Amino acid sequence: MIPSFPIPLSGERFRVVYRLIGDEAEAREKARDICLEQTVEFPADLIPEGEIREQIIGRVEVFEARGEGHWEVVISYAVETSGFELAQLLNVIFGNTSLKPGVRVERLEMPEALLSAFKGPRFGRAGWRARLGAPERPLLCTALKPMGLPPRALADLAYQFALGGIDIIKDDHGLADQPFAPFKERVELCAEAVARANRESGQKCIYMPNVTGPVDKVRDNALFAKEAGAGGLLISSGLTGLDMMRRLADDDRIVLPIMTHPALQGSFVTRPDEGISHYALFGQIARLAGADASIFPNYGGRFSFSREDCRRIAEGTAAPMGHLKPIFPTPGGGMSLARVPEMLDLYGREVIFLIGGGLHKHGPDLAESCRYLRQLVGNMAAVSGERR
Amino acid sequence: MIPSFPIPLSGERFRVVYRLIGDEAEAREKARDICLEQTVEFPADLIPEGEIREQIIGRVEVFEARGEGHWEVVISYAVETSGFELAQLLNVIFGNTSLKPGVRVERLEMPEALLSAFKGPRFGRAGWRARLGAPERPLLCTALKPMGLPPRALADLAYQFALGGIDIIKDDHGLADQPFAPFKERVELCAEAVARANRESGQKCIYMPNVTGPVDKVRDNALFAKEAGAGGLLISSGLTGLDMMRRLADDDRIVLPIMTHPALQGSFVTRPDEGISHYALFGQIARLAGADASIFPNYGGRFSFSREDCRRIAEGTAAPMGHLKPIFPTPGGGMSLARVPEMLDLYGREVIFLIGGGLHKHGPDLAESCRYLRQLVGNMAAVSGERR
Repeated sequence: MIPSFPIPLSGERFRVVYRLIGDEAEAREKARDICLEQTVEFPADLIPEGEIREQIIGRVEVFEARGEGHWEVVISYAVETSGFELAQLLNVIFGNTSLKPGVRVERLEMPEALLSAFKGPRFGRAGWRARLGAPERPLLCTALKPMGLPPRALADLAYQFALGGIDIIKDDHGLADQPFAPFKERVELCAEAVARANRESGQKCIYMPNVTGPVDKVRDNALFAKEAGAGGLLISSGLTGLDMMRRLADDDRIVLPIMTHPALQGSFVTRPDEGISHYALFGQIARLAGADASIFPNYGGRFSFSREDCRRIAEGTAAPMGHLKPIFPTPGGGMSLARVPEMLDLYGREVIFLIGGGLHKHGPDLAESCRYLRQLVGNMAAVSGERR
Repeated sequence: MIPSFPIPLSGERFRVVYRLIGDEAEAREKARDICLEQTVEFPADLIPEGEIREQIIGRVEVFEARGEGHWEVVISYAVETSGFELAQLLNVIFGNTSLKPGVRVERLEMPEALLSAFKGPRFGRAGWRARLGAPERPLLCTALKPMGLPPRALADLAYQFALGGIDIIKDDHGLADQPFAPFKERVELCAEAVARANRESGQKCIYMPNVTGPVDKVRDNALFAKEAGAGGLLISSGLTGLDMMRRLADDDRIVLPIMTHPALQGSFVTRPDEGISHYALFGQIARLAGADASIFPNYGGRFSFSREDCRRIAEGTAAPMGHLKPIFPTPGGGMSLARVPEMLDLYGREVIFLIGGGLHKHGPDLAESCRYLRQLVGNMAAVSGERR
C-alpha cells in the first residue's frame, strides 16, 4: 500500500472537456479511466484515502449525453499537476489517453491560477495591425515557393509580392536550410528585397522566414533573421514541438510576431471522435504556446477541413482565455481569389488570408495580381463593414 | 511562370512507403498529390520543365494493390529536400499530408547519404547491456508513482525496487517539476537511494529521471541529473518534440542512455488508415531521434494496441538502418507478472519489460515482488534460450 502524505495544493483546478463514444456504461468507465490515466497511472484500489485520492486523481465534474453514443465529459485536475509548464500541461490533458481510442479533447477551461504561468501571444491581433499599419481590414499573406528555387529567385518573388501590397510574405514551410536555398542567404536576400519594395511603395510589408529546424539552432536563426530585417517568424510547432514556439515567443531578445504552421499536426484532428478538436489545437493551444497567428487549411481547398471546423478554429483564436491575447486565424491551402467573398463572409475582418499558388494562377504579372487581391479584399471588407 | 534554375543535387533519394485507401483512381490521384504536397506545394502546371519538376517533386516509384481498397505506394524524394535534419525530414515525410484523410506512413527506406546526417542511438541494446551488466536476459524496468508522493516517498520506493533487482527505475512520465515533488530534490534523493541499494546488493540498477519539461530547461536538467548520479534519462518526445530528444542524445556532455515515452503520440497510430505506423513511429523514427529504448503500451493491457502492432514495433527497433543501432522495445502499461511467459514468447530476450502497478499488486513486499519477477524472467528466458 502506498503511504499517505499531506500535499501542498491550492485547491484551484483546470477543466478539460472530452468527447467520448460508446454506450453509457462504457463512457462512464472511460471517464473514470481518464481520471487515473492522466494523473496517478496507478490501480485505484491501492491508493489510500487522502489527498492523492481526493485532489490529484482527476475528477468527473460533468457527464452529459450528446446524441446517440456520444458523451461530453468535463474532468478537472489540480492546477499543480501541470507543473505550470506547457509540456506537462499537455501531458495531463491528453498524454496517455491519446493512446486509447474514442476520446477527443474538445476544449480547455483554465483559471488564472494556471494561465498566469503563460505569457501567451506577445503581439496578438492588435500587434500585427499596429506593425502593418492596417487597423481594420483583413491582412494578406503569401508564401515564397516552390522549393528548389535559389535564394535570389525567392527574393525576386518577395519583391513582387511586396510591391503588390501583400502584408506578410512568408517562406513556404518546406524551405528549411537546404543546399539549394541556405537559410542565411535566403533570409538576407528576401528581407532586403522586401525592404527595397517598401522604400519604393511606402508600404509596411514584412518578410517572415521559416525558422523551423534543429532545436539547438532555432533561437540563433530567429536572432539572425531579426538582425537581417525579418518582421516575423514562421514555425511549424508540430515539427519542433509546441514548447519551442513558446520559448521563442517568450524571448525578450527576439520580440517578433510568430505564425504557426500545422505541419504534422493533422493526425490530431482528422477523425471526429479522436485526437484534439480544431478549436483546442489551432486556437487555444496555439495561443498557450505563444503563436500570434495560426495557419490551417481552409475548407473547400485541397484539404478536408469543413466550414464548421474552420469556424471553430476562428472562435478558438479569440475565445476568452484570461490575459491571453486573441490571435489571427490564417486559413490557406489551395485558395483562389474567387473565394474571397465567401471567406469574408465566414471570417469577417479579423483574419489573415494566406494565398499562395492562387496568386500565381491568377495571371502572369504577380505584383498586379497582388494589387487586385488587396483591392478586392479592401472593397469587400468595407462593404461588409457598412452592412454590420 | 516560375523560372528554371540548375539545382545542386546528388541524385540520392529516400523512400517513404505510404498506405492509401480508396478506389484505384482515387489512390493514384492521392499519390500524385502527395508528391506535390510534400515538396513544392505548387500547381504542377506552373512548374517549368527542369530540375524542380524532375528532381524536387516526389516521385511515385511503386503503386501496388494491397487488398480491397488499399494500396501501397512508394514515393521517393531527393535527400536534399530534408535539409539533412530531423524536423524538415519529418515535414517531407508527412507534414501537410497529415492534414488529409486516408494516408498512412508505413515505413521509411533511407540511404546512407541521408542516414549519415543522424548519429542515432548512442547506446542501443549493447550499450544498455554493458551498463547494466546483463549480457543476455530481458531487462526489467519500473516506474516511481503515483503522482502526489513527495520525493522521500518516491526515493523509498526506488530503494526497494533496486534492492529487488529491477534494472531500470524510472520516474513515472507524469512526474515533472511539480510543487509536491520538485525535480531537483526528487532526482537527488532517488539517485542516492538507488546508489545505496546497489552498494548493499552489489547490483547495477540505474535511476532514470524524467527530463521532459520546458525546452529551455531540458538540457540543464539532464546535466543536473547526470551530476546527481542518474544512469539514464526518460523523455516524452511527443511533448518536447522529437528533435529535443535527438539534441540530448547527441550531446557529448550528457552521454546517458535515453528512453522515450509515447505520451501525446497516440493520435498518430490509433487509426489503421491514417497517421504513422507503429513500426515507423516507435521503431524507425524513435531511432532517428536518438532513443535507446522505446516505450509503448503492450497488447492486452489497458491500451488498445494489438499483438501484431507490438510485434511490428519490436521489428522496427532492430530493422537495418545503416549505422543506427538497434534499440530496446519497452512494452508496458497494465502488465501483470502472470503475463511474462507470453511476452517472452513474443519479444524473446531482446526487450525491456516495464512493469509498474503490477509489482504493487503482486504483494505487500515490493522488493520481494521484484525478486520474484527477476527470477521468473531469468528462468523463463533461460528455458526459452535453450529451446531455440
